[in-house]
Amino acid sequence: MRVLILGGDGYLGWPTAMNLSACGHEVAVADNYLRRNNCRETDAEPLWPVPNLNERARIWEKRSGKKVEVFIGDLSEWDFISELFCKFRPEAVIHYAEQPSAPYSMLNRRTAMQTLKNNLEVTANTIFAVKEFVPKAHIIKLGTMGEYGTPNIDIEEGWITIEHKGKKDKFLFPRQTGSLYHTTKIMDTDLLWFYVRMWGLKVTDLMQGPVYGMHTDETAGDERLLPFFNYDELFGTVLNRFIVQAVIGYPLTVYGKGGQTRGYLDIRDTLQCVRLSLENPPDQGTLRIFNQFVELFSVNELAERVRKLGKRFGLDVKVKNLPNPRKEAEEHYYNAVHTGLTDIGLTPHYLTEDVLAQMMETVFKFKEKINVPAIFKGVKWDSYEKDCGRV
Amino acid sequence: MRVLILGGDGYLGWPTAMNLSACGHEVAVADNYLRRNNCRETDAEPLWPVPNLNERARIWEKRSGKKVEVFIGDLSEWDFISELFCKFRPEAVIHYAEQPSAPYSMLNRRTAMQTLKNNLEVTANTIFAVKEFVPKAHIIKLGTMGEYGTPNIDIEEGWITIEHKGKKDKFLFPRQTGSLYHTTKIMDTDLLWFYVRMWGLKVTDLMQGPVYGMHTDETAGDERLLPFFNYDELFGTVLNRFIVQAVIGYPLTVYGKGGQTRGYLDIRDTLQCVRLSLENPPDQGTLRIFNQFVELFSVNELAERVRKLGKRFGLDVKVKNLPNPRKEAEEHYYNAVHTGLTDIGLTPHYLTEDVLAQMMETVFKFKEKINVPAIFKGVKWDSYEKDCGRV
Repeated sequence: MRVLILGGDGYLGWPTAMNLSACGHEVAVADNYLRRNNCRETDAEPLWPVPNLNERARIWEKRSGKKVEVFIGDLSEWDFISELFCKFRPEAVIHYAEQPSAPYSMLNRRTAMQTLKNNLEVTANTIFAVKEFVPKAHIIKLGTMGEYGTPNIDIEEGWITIEHKGKKDKFLFPRQTGSLYHTTKIMDTDLLWFYVRMWGLKVTDLMQGPVYGMHTDETAGDERLLPFFNYDELFGTVLNRFIVQAVIGYPLTVYGKGGQTRGYLDIRDTLQCVRLSLENPPDQGTLRIFNQFVELFSVNELAERVRKLGKRFGLDVKVKNLPNPRKEAEEHYYNAVHTGLTDIGLTPHYLTEDVLAQMMETVFKFKEKINVPAIFKGVKWDSYEKDCGRV
Repeated sequence: MRVLILGGDGYLGWPTAMNLSACGHEVAVADNYLRRNNCRETDAEPLWPVPNLNERARIWEKRSGKKVEVFIGDLSEWDFISELFCKFRPEAVIHYAEQPSAPYSMLNRRTAMQTLKNNLEVTANTIFAVKEFVPKAHIIKLGTMGEYGTPNIDIEEGWITIEHKGKKDKFLFPRQTGSLYHTTKIMDTDLLWFYVRMWGLKVTDLMQGPVYGMHTDETAGDERLLPFFNYDELFGTVLNRFIVQAVIGYPLTVYGKGGQTRGYLDIRDTLQCVRLSLENPPDQGTLRIFNQFVELFSVNELAERVRKLGKRFGLDVKVKNLPNPRKEAEEHYYNAVHTGLTDIGLTPHYLTEDVLAQMMETVFKFKEKINVPAIFKGVKWDSYEKDCGRV
């Protein structure tokens, strides 16, 4: 299938590109390096250097014999996205092209506005480009489990039937998030759902939990093909961060009581879920929603696993409960349905000690590159930095 | 109270400014004439010419002895809005500054993007300006009953408690709209609710139904102080449109079966509701939601009222059911709670034949100015015009 990956340079974008290319799809990637630039500007560079997207495509072609087309530009500009769709004419569009960090979106007014504008405008332009050039194309949108927040009722897979005063109707599951970034994802879902109803688009919205890991089948044996690996407060997801902290003897930074519970998944399962969604599309005129995660963990449980793992590496890992800089429930009910992706064939990878150990071994190789001050800055949820350009 | 009205040039903005000024509040208005420009560009000018905002403030001052400060600029620009808040330091902010037309938001890609960007960016900047300069100020935001759409359950006043699988929680009432414009209002509510939780803002969100009328206590006796009166498909609300159609013998344009039911209100009641919300603020850290309308009517009922009224004026008013260019339910359940504003003192004006007759008399005076082709263009909900600049 002709698959266009928006945000193809990202933590998940590039691994997805290689995976779909290896599976025989004809893949193009588009990116404007927004994430790289934001990491550089906030002094939160990934743990290892990552070649640019053209260079990665060349390395991949040499290795696999398969070509990934690269388009560099800003998808919020109609000039760029319309040319892109006109030229490549995708049969499916995988939309990762968003500012993906919750703390970055809470840092200051400029980062908040960048998040709001980029995420909404790219999503809107994607919808318009599909409508104008490839109205039958399948849009696969990366949403987030964070859209639901932590309600006191069971989280269904996207939809809920509400009975009220003797009548009933079906609605999008209620959503209430913990950051501006997550709020923009609620808005994306609303925008997609609106145009599905008006224009009969074909959309899959993947409500994904936090992802961990860096190794996929396609990266094996060539470190230049590894994805970005961030371990800082702004762009590092929690488990990736904890492993880096363990390696340099930095106490694991648990915010508040550490009872915050979320659904996690291995980066290899992200690739599986996206590919399964692609190869099993919904009907035209449908918004299909899957909850994309494999296992539930609290932050305390993750910290405990990393602490235990540390022993195997001779590390004495400490855990530190910090005053929570965020506003979030630190102990809460959490139960979410996630059968849709299993039903179409997902075979989960679980967070075993071997998986954790492989991650830790890789991090050890780059130990000297760890930028310690980036690990914790304490971006506060109840205020924001003034625009002095310091983070 | 020091009250800043964003979008103070609009159909509701200017009447609100005069009304609050007459009631003794210290009022400033801000606008960039976006609505005027959009009307001119789409050849959908209001029925009578409206002096610019500075001129209206001078006329009002001569008449009432009261000063309304005027600021002209784009509220999506931080330079402008930050100076404005820094200088005026409002105790309350009334936010009307949005592209307000559903059909305009569905016309083409550029009008869609303008609606999305303007409405979200102005709302975000308003939140940031309040946070930075006047964190205790009360934000009164004009939302719309259209955020709820037409669900098959009773519409509550903003919030609903959902019981599900033996547990329960309280959420924003589910929302699913009929246009991109209405979708941006859902997003506004989500944005406000998020920052109420994070930053403890004080917000009233007024879910308003379609408004009719042009006469308020403050306009009496001086036509130069009348608000915009649009009767075209893009910017005219339905009852205002029908009255103009009746006056020139244009069959009333009912879309589809005409069973579309909404909650309506007189422009004088908009002013009352906004003033009552202002003078009875919620607690800090609260998002208070009121459903702002007085009476339910279906489009058929409105058409019938205008037809009957026509007889009094010797008009033989015809009604024409057109194929519906929109995608909406033409027959549906509709029952919405609206007790909150009555509880704080709203004394409704009802749609009597005298009210209708006064509107029709005013329209008759401007009969020669009616631009017939603007009345119906048939903006389609399932497609959009290409960017040829013709509407």
